Amino acid sequence: MPEQIPPDSVGVVTPSSFEYPDAFLLQCGVALDGFTLVYEIYGQLNAARSNAVLVCHALSGHHHAAGYHSTDDAKPGWWDTCIGPGKPIDTDRFCVVSLNNLGGCNGSTGPVSVDSATGKPYGPDFPTVTVIDWVRSQALLADHLGIQRFAAVIGGSLGGMQALQWAIDYPERLATAVLIASAAKLSAQNIAFNEIARQAIINDPGYGDGHYVNTSTIPEHGLGLARMIGHVTYLSDDGMGQKFGRELKSGDLNSTQDVEFQVESYLRYQGQSFSRRFDANTYLLMTRALDYFDPAGAHDDDLVVALRRASCNFLVLSFTTDWRFPVSRSKEIVSALIAARKNVASAIIASEHGHDSFLLPLPRYLEVLGTYLARVADGLDSPATETPE
Amino acid sequence: MPEQIPPDSVGVVTPSSFEYPDAFLLQCGVALDGFTLVYEIYGQLNAARSNAVLVCHALSGHHHAAGYHSTDDAKPGWWDTCIGPGKPIDTDRFCVVSLNNLGGCNGSTGPVSVDSATGKPYGPDFPTVTVIDWVRSQALLADHLGIQRFAAVIGGSLGGMQALQWAIDYPERLATAVLIASAAKLSAQNIAFNEIARQAIINDPGYGDGHYVNTSTIPEHGLGLARMIGHVTYLSDDGMGQKFGRELKSGDLNSTQDVEFQVESYLRYQGQSFSRRFDANTYLLMTRALDYFDPAGAHDDDLVVALRRASCNFLVLSFTTDWRFPVSRSKEIVSALIAARKNVASAIIASEHGHDSFLLPLPRYLEVLGTYLARVADGLDSPATETPE
Repeated sequence: MPEQIPPDSVGVVTPSSFEYPDAFLLQCGVALDGFTLVYEIYGQLNAARSNAVLVCHALSGHHHAAGYHSTDDAKPGWWDTCIGPGKPIDTDRFCVVSLNNLGGCNGSTGPVSVDSATGKPYGPDFPTVTVIDWVRSQALLADHLGIQRFAAVIGGSLGGMQALQWAIDYPERLATAVLIASAAKLSAQNIAFNEIARQAIINDPGYGDGHYVNTSTIPEHGLGLARMIGHVTYLSDDGMGQKFGRELKSGDLNSTQDVEFQVESYLRYQGQSFSRRFDANTYLLMTRALDYFDPAGAHDDDLVVALRRASCNFLVLSFTTDWRFPVSRSKEIVSALIAARKNVASAIIASEHGHDSFLLPLPRYLEVLGTYLARVADGLDSPATETPE
Repeated sequence: MPEQIPPDSVGVVTPSSFEYPDAFLLQCGVALDGFTLVYEIYGQLNAARSNAVLVCHALSGHHHAAGYHSTDDAKPGWWDTCIGPGKPIDTDRFCVVSLNNLGGCNGSTGPVSVDSATGKPYGPDFPTVTVIDWVRSQALLADHLGIQRFAAVIGGSLGGMQALQWAIDYPERLATAVLIASAAKLSAQNIAFNEIARQAIINDPGYGDGHYVNTSTIPEHGLGLARMIGHVTYLSDDGMGQKFGRELKSGDLNSTQDVEFQVESYLRYQGQSFSRRFDANTYLLMTRALDYFDPAGAHDDDLVVALRRASCNFLVLSFTTDWRFPVSRSKEIVSALIAARKNVASAIIASEHGHDSFLLPLPRYLEVLGTYLARVADGLDSPATETPE
């Protein structure tokens, strides 16, 4: 727990809930009887309601992006590095909205929620949710908060895909889209890693028919494996080497089933702790949303055509050692934006830390993101004065 | 099945067995009461017995490297691309020895063998085997075959590690070591992927206590997952993209647990077929041998010192898109060999196919390997006249 909350933290924050009461037709054709989205707000909305920033989370993220839920919290929110007073997403200037996406397992409507039709948790029967569905539900949250237009929609990885979809679906409702370590669609390799993770979960007997919430079991091993695969592939080879080397924990060649290398014990710990705090059906759902994301698909695979509707400014960032969402994928987006005659800035950040770089306090990354967003803030109409409900 | 066996094939081959009758002390301290090694021979040993080539297999390989076991076989051995009359490892000039390593599951003594002490299969109790143990058992096989000195010891991946260990442990017993897509030790990332594969196997209830050979179950899902992880990481991102794209097999967003992308069905098939033909305990054992390989470890991590004993010539090959055993790892070996004042040739082969490249008929690869080995053959004493027992 922090001895004292640091001065550049947003401090103690309390989540809120948005209850959408009406039917919500998903892209897959299934309608939800309304939904709940849990969100947090950092900073104050200005009088012109023009300084709102939407933060979209990645695969295993949630609404708690910054600050602490209590002074006893050991760790702040998942993007505290970037969000706070004086930080790149500066809460002295912006009013940041961060939500748990539909289908999540941190309070928003998802597989662990009770299906009113059956009186039981949805589990595996929760309908398929896409990035398009997420963006549409986020727009309803924005309506609820009285935010007509975001100063910026920002996300890393799967979060960047949401920012891109925002630019396409609601061109008039954002001034800027910031896509960090993202892609316009997954590669076959990325889909393959997601598939292996799904297989690990589904084949765990703890998963059963997917209705494990009603039982005393969870697919602990399968979800742990999925997390381990994610973890290894979000780091770079060199970054892992520096972190772990290959130091043996034991010199005993005979302990074939025990942990021998430091990286092994680390991975097992990561897998176990993740499977206790995350819902396996949500993991399946989120990886599917990643796989299906393909805004160019509706335009004969022409991303330039898909982007024509967008009118916001774009910032596209990538990291040199990220091999799940490599620099080349960000370049594809930048090239398509240029061809579509959009206003785009981009930077390739040197980093040893692979895909995880987007969560880390890398000086050039923070500087580029902060400077760009400071210019966005400079262009806003009025100082912060008002807080949304 | 081949309509007709191609003229550049070694034809129909029959495996042989070498029974070593004496105690064999492994590096882990456990002694085996003798062992069996299954092997195949392609080509004829010359009068000077100087034209033998040892082929060492990788993780899931075996003795059947070339030719067919019968005219009904659908596929030839795993390295038929490189071994045969007129091929890079030219059986008109060389006598090729290919074995299933100790601990394997294709006939050599391993976890599926019966432990004479218990009358039951070893299963998970089979002792840890290292690359050093393999090389020593291969030297005993060479003694048995009357081969004092190999013209070349050749291997890809884990097989290249054996070739390197041969050069260090038996400098007088080989003229050439050919290391293809290999490394002097694994990176933390590689160990991490191996660990995830092991966790997938061990956590499969079909694995149980590892004595599944006595039961009707096998850890089919776990071993299948291990294979899928290997498969994806042995291919390059671009190579997978060209092979599969991301074509949907179904446009139905609601089939969350069914196969949606072509790459998914391919992976599931690969995983399933592998788990029916390979032993899970052998897979665990082989990955451990990979993880422990570290010839520099006994010399204060100084590979140059470790290589000083070697006296053979070296050929070191790597492939541009191989990210499990990347070009940089081969460069480390080459640099250490140069520093140790050894005779080394090396080439970096442009390929889109990742680590799997070493098994593929890439023209420049075949040309470099074939030309180098032709020079080795040119230096031999006498034509082929004799076959080992």
